[in-house]
Amino acid sequence: MPTVKMVEYEDATGEVKEVFDEIMRVRNIDWVPNVWKTLAAHPPTLKRIWKNLNEVMAPGRLDKLTKEMIAVAVSATNGCEYCINSHTAAARKLGMDDEMLGEVLAVVGMFNQTNKLAEGYQIPVDPQYKR
Amino acid sequence: MPTVKMVEYEDATGEVKEVFDEIMRVRNIDWVPNVWKTLAAHPPTLKRIWKNLNEVMAPGRLDKLTKEMIAVAVSATNGCEYCINSHTAAARKLGMDDEMLGEVLAVVGMFNQTNKLAEGYQIPVDPQYKR
Amino acid sequence: MPTVKMVEYEDATGEVKEVFDEIMRVRNIDWVPNVWKTLAAHPPTLKRIWKNLNEVMAPGRLDKLTKEMIAVAVSATNGCEYCINSHTAAARKLGMDDEMLGEVLAVVGMFNQTNKLAEGYQIPVDPQYKR
Amino acid sequence: MPTVKMVEYEDATGEVKEVFDEIMRVRNIDWVPNVWKTLAAHPPTLKRIWKNLNEVMAPGRLDKLTKEMIAVAVSATNGCEYCINSHTAAARKLGMDDEMLGEVLAVVGMFNQTNKLAEGYQIPVDPQYKR
Amino acid sequence: MPTVKMVEYEDATGEVKEVFDEIMRVRNIDWVPNVWKTLAAHPPTLKRIWKNLNEVMAPGRLDKLTKEMIAVAVSATNGCEYCINSHTAAARKLGMDDEMLGEVLAVVGMFNQTNKLAEGYQIPVDPQYKR
Amino acid sequence: MPTVKMVEYEDATGEVKEVFDEIMRVRNIDWVPNVWKTLAAHPPTLKRIWKNLNEVMAPGRLDKLTKEMIAVAVSATNGCEYCINSHTAAARKLGMDDEMLGEVLAVVGMFNQTNKLAEGYQIPVDPQYKR
Repeated sequence: MPTVKMVEYEDATGEVKEVFDEIMRVRNIDWVPNVWKTLAAHPPTLKRIWKNLNEVMAPGRLDKLTKEMIAVAVSATNGCEYCINSHTAAARKLGMDDEMLGEVLAVVGMFNQTNKLAEGYQIPVDPQYKR
Repeated sequence: MPTVKMVEYEDATGEVKEVFDEIMRVRNIDWVPNVWKTLAAHPPTLKRIWKNLNEVMAPGRLDKLTKEMIAVAVSATNGCEYCINSHTAAARKLGMDDEMLGEVLAVVGMFNQTNKLAEGYQIPVDPQYKR
Repeated sequence: MPTVKMVEYEDATGEVKEVFDEIMRVRNIDWVPNVWKTLAAHPPTLKRIWKNLNEVMAPGRLDKLTKEMIAVAVSATNGCEYCINSHTAAARKLGMDDEMLGEVLAVVGMFNQTNKLAEGYQIPVDPQYKR
Repeated sequence: MPTVKMVEYEDATGEVKEVFDEIMRVRNIDWVPNVWKTLAAHPPTLKRIWKNLNEVMAPGRLDKLTKEMIAVAVSATNGCEYCINSHTAAARKLGMDDEMLGEVLAVVGMFNQTNKLAEGYQIPVDPQYKR
Repeated sequence: MPTVKMVEYEDATGEVKEVFDEIMRVRNIDWVPNVWKTLAAHPPTLKRIWKNLNEVMAPGRLDKLTKEMIAVAVSATNGCEYCINSHTAAARKLGMDDEMLGEVLAVVGMFNQTNKLAEGYQIPVDPQYKR
Repeated sequence: MPTVKMVEYEDATGEVKEVFDEIMRVRNIDWVPNVWKTLAAHPPTLKRIWKNLNEVMAPGRLDKLTKEMIAVAVSATNGCEYCINSHTAAARKLGMDDEMLGEVLAVVGMFNQTNKLAEGYQIPVDPQYKR
């Protein structure tokens, strides 16, 4: 249960309703995900995060699927349940299958291991790696 | 300074020397990175990590560059200095430029933000996201 | 379910019962929160944490509400479910409403984002920021 | 050394120069902090982060000092060197002294401890804490 | 619910079935834990992790119980629910009782506290601690 | 450089000097480590942490070396430079050699890997692992 009351679509008004409508139109869904119903408890955050998300996730030099797989990697590293579920679902919609997810998480696991070995041994950065 | 004495190439013998030679051959470099000189202080770890790395980073459904960019994302999320420097250098060698790195880190920043909002508000997972 | 058996008030004796009674008296509640029933499985930890908590959370140069909001920020950054729920409830008791929580979490989200950008780019500390 | 070339003020043009000028004017400083010179390597990130920062850090129900102290708490929990130094300096400018910093970090230390105890024992959330 | 379909023993074939059989034989159990049923969705990860685990957890200079208690400490620090539950159960099987777990978690809590104080104050490493 | 002025032994008075003297006597050293000189900027924290440390690190069901190795594991997982260096030095004083450190960090690396796989796949806890 969230620590604030989620705003249901029926109760949304003004800017919150506008964002909800835009989310459903852009995403082509007929329901409002809990993340947006929760952020609506603080409308400036709802608007800022929705705007930022569209900016950051727009296809650029990296395509949308690559960006969603990076989102899965970040969320798995942080252990965020909501985020792992929602980004994995989003990446699947864009074409990620079990084998690709397997490779993403194998990389995530591998480098969480080596990150901690590098820290644990306090390995100095090689000058060759510096820009 | 690492918390163990690094094994220099000149002092390497047996299996450690074999791994060092293989690293330089596979990577096409004439020096041994500090991570391997440090892990050599515990040879079973040196061998296991080198073997795992080759297995995990081999191109599969994801190409090597995508895997290195995910490694950058994991390392940035963990704040591991050695890892950020070495994986960024490796990704650059495979073709990542400043704009692509900009997109990778924008995604990393964005979802570290939303990960913490999702946790902070304890947002429940939508049933639609469950497999 | 906790990984140890929680000590119920009815089963508490000696020092554990004394701490439980003090918690209910100081907090003005007629029940013992799960954190204390769980820590009671290792009485030295129960006593040390309770004593430390009172010392650290006593109003000083920062008031109790500010301290609880910092506790929410730490717990959200760590993604600790029990802690987010209990500190949010405690801060609400001290006067935090949805809008204030919205600002706390907006700050938490924002700086988790910039923390990872600073790490990801390995930004050097400006000499002007050094004490 | 950052993993991208920082944009110096002398080399800034267009939107990057505009943001740099605005930063110096708003902050009332005659130099550009490294964070902005680094983010300028990816102008969309520079603009988005600067805009978000102003929005999130504007005094609202929480004053600027409280927000900066929360930024210190988040940065200390994440162990981000640049962020700890810059937010501690910013909070000092707004009036935080050694004793207040001592209280902020005592709270940060305390709840990082209890966060891990709560996770380590898998303490269930009390129904009384649920909204 | 996991984000991939778990492979049940009845449906396992080839290498996956071989690993499942080996797990049950080595562990002396008549069921396959969820971690292995889930990793089986990506067989190369299943095989690599099982092989690594046996290598790393084999008694060496540290006995198996000490290694499992370190696993509990790592999992508690990361807040990983599955891992905390499984490693605590494994350590109990090897002889850890509530008091020993209490000491492990007291140490984990203590040093998560001091880790954040050390970061928050940016304490410089004493030359005496360097190897 | 720390974000507060460290208190040198020569400038210490009253309770701070008493703690410094006790540290040097108990540890059998003729210098004050930076962590204590820094915490002395907030005397209540200095006293509380020193007292807690002695309580938690006293040999109990776990010996001092096991506790220090767990401290290394926690610090490596958190990536805390000061802490990794000081706890590794302390564990070496108590008898840990390179091979034992190698085993500690191999375990730390291994379970940081599996922790993230467990989170990334959202593996459900087996009922058999529940207490």
